[in-house]
Amino acid sequence: MPTQLQIARQGVISDQVRLVGRAESIPAEQLSQEVASGRVVIPANKVHLQRGLRPIGIGRPLRTKVNANIGTSGARSDLSLELEKLRIALEAGADTIMDLSTGGDIDHIRQELLQACPVPFGTVPIYQVIQGRDVDEVTVDLIIGTIESQARQGVDFFTLHAGLLSRHLALVEDRLAGIVSRGGALLAKWMVHHGKENPLYEYFDDICQILTEFDVCISLGDGLRPGAIADATDQAQLAELEVLAELVERAWAHGCQVMVEGPGHVPFNQIQYNMELQQRLCHGAPFYVLGPVVTDIAPGYDHITAAIGGTAAAYYGASFLCYVTPTEHLGLPSAEDVRIGVIAARIAAHAADLARGLPSALAADRQISLARRELDWERHLAIAIDPQTARRIYLQACKDSNNLEPGKADYCTMCGKQWCSLRISKELRQAR
Amino acid sequence: MPTQLQIARQGVISDQVRLVGRAESIPAEQLSQEVASGRVVIPANKVHLQRGLRPIGIGRPLRTKVNANIGTSGARSDLSLELEKLRIALEAGADTIMDLSTGGDIDHIRQELLQACPVPFGTVPIYQVIQGRDVDEVTVDLIIGTIESQARQGVDFFTLHAGLLSRHLALVEDRLAGIVSRGGALLAKWMVHHGKENPLYEYFDDICQILTEFDVCISLGDGLRPGAIADATDQAQLAELEVLAELVERAWAHGCQVMVEGPGHVPFNQIQYNMELQQRLCHGAPFYVLGPVVTDIAPGYDHITAAIGGTAAAYYGASFLCYVTPTEHLGLPSAEDVRIGVIAARIAAHAADLARGLPSALAADRQISLARRELDWERHLAIAIDPQTARRIYLQACKDSNNLEPGKADYCTMCGKQWCSLRISKELRQAR
Repeated sequence: MPTQLQIARQGVISDQVRLVGRAESIPAEQLSQEVASGRVVIPANKVHLQRGLRPIGIGRPLRTKVNANIGTSGARSDLSLELEKLRIALEAGADTIMDLSTGGDIDHIRQELLQACPVPFGTVPIYQVIQGRDVDEVTVDLIIGTIESQARQGVDFFTLHAGLLSRHLALVEDRLAGIVSRGGALLAKWMVHHGKENPLYEYFDDICQILTEFDVCISLGDGLRPGAIADATDQAQLAELEVLAELVERAWAHGCQVMVEGPGHVPFNQIQYNMELQQRLCHGAPFYVLGPVVTDIAPGYDHITAAIGGTAAAYYGASFLCYVTPTEHLGLPSAEDVRIGVIAARIAAHAADLARGLPSALAADRQISLARRELDWERHLAIAIDPQTARRIYLQACKDSNNLEPGKADYCTMCGKQWCSLRISKELRQAR
Repeated sequence: MPTQLQIARQGVISDQVRLVGRAESIPAEQLSQEVASGRVVIPANKVHLQRGLRPIGIGRPLRTKVNANIGTSGARSDLSLELEKLRIALEAGADTIMDLSTGGDIDHIRQELLQACPVPFGTVPIYQVIQGRDVDEVTVDLIIGTIESQARQGVDFFTLHAGLLSRHLALVEDRLAGIVSRGGALLAKWMVHHGKENPLYEYFDDICQILTEFDVCISLGDGLRPGAIADATDQAQLAELEVLAELVERAWAHGCQVMVEGPGHVPFNQIQYNMELQQRLCHGAPFYVLGPVVTDIAPGYDHITAAIGGTAAAYYGASFLCYVTPTEHLGLPSAEDVRIGVIAARIAAHAADLARGLPSALAADRQISLARRELDWERHLAIAIDPQTARRIYLQACKDSNNLEPGKADYCTMCGKQWCSLRISKELRQAR
């Protein structure tokens, strides 16, 4: 069975292209060409499709998408909590979910999460390979077998840190933060221990053949992403990116869908360069970025540092933002942190889409501002990006303001009646 | 007694210039020249100085500064709550405070807040003028008298919406959100009602003379700032900005310190243009922006939309960010909202300073990343932008992870021991 890429190359419009085109108001023919060129991916494992996956597209011509990471750890492995995080992430509007579980019965957890997940679902197969094993027990067969078994299970996209090579390790020596990618660090350890090249690179073609069978989209991991502002856009990062660009073409040669992962910790002034470089080197393959966070100093607020960087990234070239939660750098997120993380990333995605002039984004802002102007509180709150939070704050503000009756007054609790500029603006309009 | 501007023009280095220069590691001679040129202001009312004001400087050569708005409303007027907000804002690191009180005994509230405020303190005098009065009772004498009495009290900077003129009102007609500035809306109402020009414009020279006596810095309000993305960078906004530029030169002619206020709601792609335009038209007078928020759709999260816009603004030309809290557009902030608003604005200011290459900003990121690399949790948390929040999240994460003993482990609760990339990086470094 051909992949979305292969179908589109044949000039055939798949059902998935048709659905995505409709959702994004883009003609199916045009979208199919974008898929054929590799500039848009539709991660849709055939197994997951049969179980009711709602396909989405990722790429520059489309709305910027948002991923939420969930998953267990060795110290905390509770399936019901992860199912709750999944539910909250979907409710908050995550476009995709990644299961990064590293603790408990990972196969079972993935099976249950995948079953409950109607949107594209990603994993990092190397995480399962190392679970409960020492690095010397990890063989190439084990790695490839795990990839195949997860593909068979229905996972829609895999992060594969295939671009991190032995020759890059010397470039990491002068770094402040070294290797901060978990997958990257583990592969580096494997390479040093076994004295061999990265198996994901060495066996990349074999892996591609497995993935095309199920149409799993590759997400080329950036094992050398900078983990500190001081390391941003350094030689290690750029050297790996060049290999990722080579792997994009190799994946395409197999008819395999592919996107590229990006940094990381990047100061605001380097984001444009990073985005444009990836788009140029990787021939427009979609860029999937983690943040980027624009400073190191804000643990507890990295959903905000990532929203700043994510807006700039998605404006200048990224198509897909991985959320960052307030617990980043400190621990694993609670369900509430998941919600905040998704909303913050969606704000960044939307702000970038607005800046790119996407008609649907412009219409959304126009609608809420019309409701605001008319002091139509019900509608204002209902169409907010997070209606629940907006309503909670509004009701509290009414309560604190001499129990103003919510939604009834022709002013808000921020300025009060006499000071309501919107009310005065209305008067001025009517006076003319 | 001369103003900071006049002193600097005479080639004399004031005590305040010396203090600010030391705090910002910039030679006093150079800073004095920046003050003389108007590119840096040091808002320091002589009365407040005598009572122990710690002066700060605002301008492009310096660290980006952050203001927190507090103040009562007609519906909620509790001095102790406002004193608590002041305390929290200062603790969170606000560089300046504005008292926007519109309810209760405003004079008394201002007196008490000013007394407790060691940093520059600003107000919007027109708010007091209209309190308890109808628009037809507001006279020019009342306006000027109020300005003088607040100057005498020790206020360091005044927002004066002096650039909004009768001829601009027609430009507002096609706007989606009309006039959203409270001061702007009230003055427009006054102008329409009395059939006269804006008194702050008409009597601008008289006002400057009063302000130079105390060295109150003018903050030229943007009464026509866009209140919706659809209105950003429109004719009304730009026409007012041209008048503000004229008023900058008129203030300077009086030896009066002056800065300019700016938008508002601005999409990400228009921020650079807005900043560069203000800097060019206003001859480098410091730009003080409210946000800008980069989308209308996120009530409840406008500290985030403002942090996104504020980073870009401070990178491209602004020197001073007015915080926006999660309650913006919905109500008045609680003390906790004040704290979140200050931190979010400080993140934006810092991210921009980092992008501008300020050595102190680069050093801060380097330090926390070194602590992170060494898995030195005590130091990591202590030097975070909000140590209290970072610590709370970290301790909770430890608790949730089988009660890991905080700070003892050579890994964190995010990835756990086996997955700790920092620990593996350390191993790899040691293996070489």
